[in-house]
Formats: sequence, C-alpha cells, structure tokens
Amino acid sequence: MIRAVVWNENVHEQESDVVRGIYPDGIHGCIAAALNTVDGVTATTATLQDPEHGLPQDRLDDTDVLIWWGHAAHGDVSDAVCDRVCDAVLAGMGVIFLHSSHFAKPFKKLMGTACNLTWREAGEKERIWVTEPGHPIAAGLPNPFELENEEMYGEPFGVPQPLETVFLSWFEGGEAFRSGLTYRRGAGNVFYFRPGHETYPTYHQPVIQRVLANAVRWAHNPMPRLNDVHGAPNVPIENALEPLTQKGGRLHKDGEDGFR
Amino acid sequence: MIRAVVWNENVHEQESDVVRGIYPDGIHGCIAAALNTVDGVTATTATLQDPEHGLPQDRLDDTDVLIWWGHAAHGDVSDAVCDRVCDAVLAGMGVIFLHSSHFAKPFKKLMGTACNLTWREAGEKERIWVTEPGHPIAAGLPNPFELENEEMYGEPFGVPQPLETVFLSWFEGGEAFRSGLTYRRGAGNVFYFRPGHETYPTYHQPVIQRVLANAVRWAHNPMPRLNDVHGAPNVPIENALEPLTQKGGRLHKDGEDGFR
Amino acid sequence: MIRAVVWNENVHEQESDVVRGIYPDGIHGCIAAALNTVDGVTATTATLQDPEHGLPQDRLDDTDVLIWWGHAAHGDVSDAVCDRVCDAVLAGMGVIFLHSSHFAKPFKKLMGTACNLTWREAGEKERIWVTEPGHPIAAGLPNPFELENEEMYGEPFGVPQPLETVFLSWFEGGEAFRSGLTYRRGAGNVFYFRPGHETYPTYHQPVIQRVLANAVRWAHNPMPRLNDVHGAPNVPIENALEPLTQKGGRLHKDGEDGFR
Amino acid sequence: MIRAVVWNENVHEQESDVVRGIYPDGIHGCIAAALNTVDGVTATTATLQDPEHGLPQDRLDDTDVLIWWGHAAHGDVSDAVCDRVCDAVLAGMGVIFLHSSHFAKPFKKLMGTACNLTWREAGEKERIWVTEPGHPIAAGLPNPFELENEEMYGEPFGVPQPLETVFLSWFEGGEAFRSGLTYRRGAGNVFYFRPGHETYPTYHQPVIQRVLANAVRWAHNPMPRLNDVHGAPNVPIENALEPLTQKGGRLHKDGEDGFR
Repeated sequence: MIRAVVWNENVHEQESDVVRGIYPDGIHGCIAAALNTVDGVTATTATLQDPEHGLPQDRLDDTDVLIWWGHAAHGDVSDAVCDRVCDAVLAGMGVIFLHSSHFAKPFKKLMGTACNLTWREAGEKERIWVTEPGHPIAAGLPNPFELENEEMYGEPFGVPQPLETVFLSWFEGGEAFRSGLTYRRGAGNVFYFRPGHETYPTYHQPVIQRVLANAVRWAHNPMPRLNDVHGAPNVPIENALEPLTQKGGRLHKDGEDGFR
Repeated sequence: MIRAVVWNENVHEQESDVVRGIYPDGIHGCIAAALNTVDGVTATTATLQDPEHGLPQDRLDDTDVLIWWGHAAHGDVSDAVCDRVCDAVLAGMGVIFLHSSHFAKPFKKLMGTACNLTWREAGEKERIWVTEPGHPIAAGLPNPFELENEEMYGEPFGVPQPLETVFLSWFEGGEAFRSGLTYRRGAGNVFYFRPGHETYPTYHQPVIQRVLANAVRWAHNPMPRLNDVHGAPNVPIENALEPLTQKGGRLHKDGEDGFR
Repeated sequence: MIRAVVWNENVHEQESDVVRGIYPDGIHGCIAAALNTVDGVTATTATLQDPEHGLPQDRLDDTDVLIWWGHAAHGDVSDAVCDRVCDAVLAGMGVIFLHSSHFAKPFKKLMGTACNLTWREAGEKERIWVTEPGHPIAAGLPNPFELENEEMYGEPFGVPQPLETVFLSWFEGGEAFRSGLTYRRGAGNVFYFRPGHETYPTYHQPVIQRVLANAVRWAHNPMPRLNDVHGAPNVPIENALEPLTQKGGRLHKDGEDGFR
Repeated sequence: MIRAVVWNENVHEQESDVVRGIYPDGIHGCIAAALNTVDGVTATTATLQDPEHGLPQDRLDDTDVLIWWGHAAHGDVSDAVCDRVCDAVLAGMGVIFLHSSHFAKPFKKLMGTACNLTWREAGEKERIWVTEPGHPIAAGLPNPFELENEEMYGEPFGVPQPLETVFLSWFEGGEAFRSGLTYRRGAGNVFYFRPGHETYPTYHQPVIQRVLANAVRWAHNPMPRLNDVHGAPNVPIENALEPLTQKGGRLHKDGEDGFR
C-alpha cells in the first residue's frame, strides 16, 4: 500500500467563497478522496495550519509520496519543515508539486533555480498533450485532454532541464508550456504537474485524478529510506580497499570530521 | 576577452605552513596567474576576507566566469553573497566549482541536493579518464592524466544527474568518482571539477591549468545577462495574443502581482 | 508476473572448453535459472541458432523484458530481428544489454552512436561502485562489490549521455568505466550493464544476479504495448481541435500519407 | 570562419510551381544566402542530385556544421552517405536537422527511435516560445515569434529525451510541440528545428534566419575532428598503467582484434 499525504496551505478555502464553493473539503480533501479510490494507494491530508504544518519527522518517515499544493502562503512555510521535506525526498520519499507550488519553498530548494513563469487568470481553455505516451504517468490518459477553465502559465519556466517532459499545454490565449516534468533528487522521484488553479474545479476532473494516481505510483520508491543523507564519511587509510600508505601533506587527523 | 574571477576562502593559506608553502600567493593567485597566460582570458581574484567577500553586485555584473574554491569556511560565506552569486548564474554568469567546493553554499543551492561524498586524505595517486574526448572541456588533454598526490573523493556523490559526465577518476586506494560534471542553471553554465586539495600542488600542474582554461571558455555565455531572473509577470487579458474573454472565478485583480 | 527472455548468441559455449566449463547450460541458462528464483519474474531463453533467433514477433509480444548477451556473432544477427527487437522496445518492452553487447546490433541502433570502448582480457579485479544508492537497480547491493576476475572495459565509452549513471567500475589495471547506464527509447526502458565476460563465472555471482533481478523489475513497463510505433498520422483540417481554414500553398491532398 | 554546408534534397523545387515560386534558388540557396551574411560563417550548398549527394568524405572533413533539409526523397539517400554523415557527427561535425528531416536517414540513425509525429498541412499560424532565453540558440530572438503559415507538427514526437528543449510551438489548430531540441552524439552537437514546410516562405523570415545563424554557431565544435570513431583498441597487459599479471581464462591472443 502506497501511503500518500496531500499537503495544502488551505488558505483560499478559508478566505474565498469561490474557492470554498468548489472545494468544500479543501483541495487536499478533494485530492485525498480521489486517491483513496485508487487500488494500492491510501491518502491522508496535512495543512499549513497543523502543528509543524502537519509534517513532523515521524509522519514524513511514514509517507511514501507527498503531494504539495501552495499559493498565497509560501512564505509561511517554516524553513525547518522545508528542509525536513527536502531531506525526506533525498532519502527516497516521492514528491509531486502542483500548479502554483512552482514557487513553494521545497520545490525551489530542490530545483536550485528561480522556478518563475508568466501567468494569466482568465479561465481560458487548456489542452494538454502527452509527449511520452508510454510513460507510466500517462497511463490510460486520452491524448490530448482538456480543461475548460484554467489559469495560464507561460514559458520561460525557470527550472533545470528535466529528466523527462511528459506533458505540454496549449492555451486558448496563445501560450505553450511544459506541464509535466520529472526529476530525481537523491533517492526521491519528483514530478511537477501544472494544472490546478483554485478557482476552477480542476481536481474534480477524472482525467486529472488519473494523472495524480499515476504520478503517485510512479513517484513511489519502494526501497528502504536512505540514512544520513548529508553524511560525508572519512575512509581511514587502514580501511582502504587497496594497499595504501600516507603520502604528502595533510590537514586532517585520523578519524576527524571533514569541513562543511 | 572573457573576464574570470577566481574566488578563494583563503583560510588554509593563512593557517597552514604546508599550504602556504605550496601556494604562497594563495590558490586564487595560482589559478589566476595561470588563466592570465591564456589567450582571450583575463583573471582577477576575490577572497572571503574582502568586503562582501570581494563579490559586490557590480563586480558580478562584470564577471563572465566565476571560479570558486572553499573548504574550511563554507559557513562564513554570507547568505546574501550566496544568493547574489546564484542569481548571477541564473542570469548567465558561468561558474566553476573546484574540489571541496562541493559543500560550498552556492553549489549546494544550485544543485538542490546534499552534494556529499566519501573522502580520504592520503596523498594517493589519482588518474583521470576523459569520457567525452570531443567535449570542449577536454580539448588538448592527454587521456588519461595523473596526479601523483590527491585527496580521494568516493561515490556516492550526492548531486543530480548531470547534463554531461566529462571525467572519471580512478584512485590508488580503490575508489572511482565522477570528476567532471556539467549542469545548466538558468542561463548559466556550471562545471564541477574534483581535483585540488590544498596540501598538494594540483593547480600548479599544466594539465589541470588546461582543464581550467577550457572550462572557463566553455562556461562563458556571451549573451547579454538576463534581467529580473525572478520575475513572474502577469499577462493581462487584453494583451493576450489570441482573442480571449474573462471566464470563471478569479482571485487576482487586473495588474496585480502574483503570490510568492 | 514479469516475463523475461534471456537471449544469448551461444557461440563460445559451443567452441570453447573454458566457457562451456563455466556455463554448461550456457550464459542464457545460467541467467534464466537465477531469474526464475526471483519472486514475480519468470524467465525463458532464446539463442541465435533458433529459428528467427528465437525471437519471432509473437514471442516479443509476450516478452516484458529482454536480456541480450552477444560477442563473437553480432554480425550474424539478422537485420530483420534487430529491427523487430528495436520496435518492441519503442512499444514498451524493457531491454538489458550485457557486457560485450555494447556492440550488439540492437544496442547500436537504439543508441545511434559507435558504442566503442577500450578493453583488456587479463582476468583482473573489477570493483563496482554504486553512484545512486537509492536507485531501484541498486536495491539490496553492497557498495562497493567486487568481481575477482573480469575483462577490463575502459573509457571513452561511445554512448549518448545516459538518463542516469548507476554504477562506476574501478579496474585493477588502472581504468575507470561507467558500468550501469539507463536510457529510455520510446516506451522502452534500456539498461546497459558492463560485467560478464564469458571466461569468468560472473553470472554465477549472487550480487550480479541481484543486479539482473533488480534491472528486470526496473525495465518492466506495465503499460499496454504501444501500437504502430512508426505511425505519423495526418490530422485532417476538419478534425482540428480549434476552428481552422485552409491557407497558403499545399502539397498533400486530403487523407494522403506523408513522405518517408 | 565556420564552414556550413546546406544540404537539400531539392525535389519539390523541381516539381512544384508553388515551391519553386517561393524558393527559386532552392531552400538550400535561400538558407546559404542568409548564412553568408552572418559574421564568421561561410556557407555552401549540396543536393541529393550531386554525385555522392554532394557529400564525399573530403567535403565532410571540411564541413563544420551540416544543415539538412529533406522530405519526399528520404529513401533516395544512400546508406553509405548516411553512415558517412553520422560518422562525421560522431567525430565532431555539428548538424542541424530541419522540419521534415525528422524522418531523414541520418537523423533517425543518430536518434535510434521512430522520430514520428502527427501533422496537418493547413497553412495555420505557428507561434514559437523560447523556453531557455539564455541559450545561445535563442540569442537576439523576440519571445514569442510567429509564422503566419506553417505545417502543423504534433506530439507525441518520437525522439529520445533531449539534452535541452529550447523552443515550444503553439499551433492555431490546437496542438503544441517541442520545436527546438539539442542532443550530442559523440563529439557532434545536434539540433532539431521544426519550422520550414516548403510551401511557405519560412526560411525567408529574418527571425528564422537568426535561429539558423545561432544554431550554426552553437553546433560548431572547434576541436580537431576525432579519429577512428569506431575504434575499440585492445590495451595489452604489458601496457597497463598499474602492475598486472594475466589471470583466469582467456579467449583472445595478444594484440588480437576484438569481435564486432
């Protein structure tokens, strides 16, 4: 059973009648409910307002795939939780960043770039094309599929070149965008998926729920979580695998830690 | 003329007789002197001890390629300078990280990973193999080339998969390592090059100086620096390239900035 | 159940007492027997000498992952079977190329490069380092692991930059090599794994059998095989997803096939 | 001076009044004339109808970047010339494949995949977005830029994941496409650029000529051409860089060639 946690900042659901009307249980509630209908997946939720944003270390230890949605409150996410999430990814937790989470702290940290883009909130049509029809994230999808109303995101999208581009978006207003991108950071699989503006019912669409189910399965790394993802162990000379004698100058004493 | 700046924390040159003996002008001085013999390259230096670590904004604006060496004092680099360097890279400045700079703040930030590895300071032999003999960074190099005394770095090296692996190292004590890796972050070319422990005369070796000269040329992006690398401009509906009318719910007012 | 087929040219097993002594059931027999002990995997064999080299279309249709070993008889593999194998990969069949199969026809065709390297048959020690300890192909492996006797392969290895470098080899005689590389071609996952010279008992080693079991699971794409992997369908104007009228000059008539 | 050769099958210019009207000097003539106005570039032409298709070995030896346009006559390109071109790329010649050359023999051989796509010849509007504004191929381009009439190409585009995606296309009829892709094969830089259907004046547009000029500069590898790109040299034991004695079984005699 793949254990997914759907994290949401859960801000516009509190502040906006429009958003609450579409997502009475929150975006997190909508996505988790959909994932809980998927064979082999069990989903729970966490929000910004929970203690430690709902992501204490022991919960991350028990999370196979984290799904992240944020927009208005990126800056309210604590650096400690951001670092903890990124370390869990390096250790093997899968992570899926949705829509406006392109500016989420852990996404920016994992990418190392500005993650910026252009945008327009016009409720225009988005048509999504599958570029890799044999990719597990595209399993069972029609090609293309459409969203009647979405926010537009335009290029340039300030991310590193991905391992794989899985989706492209065509927008009614004239833009194109790389809408599904895969990365790997340490042992963790990372997927960015573009759609999901909170004023439209995107996560209620079966085709989008199918993408998320596929992405959860794809992002899941069944290996045991790696330990000590920041460790930089010294290998003493006497433990070298080939015969070796000390030569030349030296800064470190035996068994000493390296610098950071 | 490509304008290179060689940055060095310049700590062990002050504290260690061994290091000062090898690099009386500092590692930065040694590398800059070598680069200044290269056609089409002019090099200056900057150190941790300089105001703003020698890297105020106007100097970065005039730097085509930054070379970074750090080890004992990564933590003394200010976050402001780290961010400024990373933004300059996104805007198009080339950057070369040397040896123990795998743990430098800007390298870790640009990679988004732990950048950790195993190590041993035994002065052992390192033999470097060129995996891409047609790569500009490998121009004019013998294959392989050797360093009689080096610190060992071993896998796993906690970095994202690179665009290109240019060098592999073979170590006398039994390890192998990916020693030359290319990345691109925004408009900036990034090269990591492994050799260069401060207790050995690595940067005095002509073959290593050739690698650095090649890497400076490769990293140089002759395009004008990008502006506003974090900008996420709104595209108003009336400026859409195709006819468009407002539909659906809406959070943002016309001309409003997005959230961060 | 993942259906693996182990293909072997099966030549030196017939001609060389040394090889037959090590692999009385052939390299294919040895590998298939090992895979048949793996939960969720069932393996059969095919050889060059079989009709259609044991790989008629209907067998490839029922193969989830093909493992390929060849050396002396690359040129005896028919172009028709090579093309058929490559098309099956594009459609979603996983494929693992072993050792001297770097010069196999389907590997060269899928890579598009020379796939050349340097080599030495001295029975020297090979030590393999895991560069991605969280990669599924590295699951459960010690890091490093050793083979007491192997043929050496040296860089440059004439392949495209991989999606991922999973293993590096250290050789007793002084070389280093990228020993585990992943690619994707169409819907097919491709893995190259270096060890396995026929005069040494490499495929009898439990650690190597573990790599192969991991690789079979990794290479398996559970999606339905893609149809018509060479299709380039015309989209008639009347089927365009947005309103469209014919403009400008024209070469093709309605419904006509494109050129090839 | 970068020596470019513009190769064209030159078929529709002979057969179609429409095409001849737009390109009275052939597509090759149009592109070469544009490149000859570029500082540091000199361009000549070659066509299918020339002896050896205008690409004998000595001409390829003197070509820094080859530009390839083909459509109706891919099958008339001899395998010998295709292999010669691909070997020149491996040795360091840059190559740019234009538009319908996605099905050209050397492109398919270098990619190792089907290179297929969907298409529609409706003269619709194509708008091209720059995804990497700091990439040398995008130097000086507006973002986006438009072609009033073009053939549509749609995803999935059956190529390996590129090193870099530089352009995306938006089509009036509703499709999106990855229109500028970089690869490296051996020492050769490879660029695929989508626009250029022969019934529209695409290569007369200054913005397209700018892309081609940028791409020629980007694709140029100034290093000496590699020798013997298919060589797989034996390294005799007595030449090993570390002390080594023969161990284990053996197939090859000293100095013997390997198998192919």
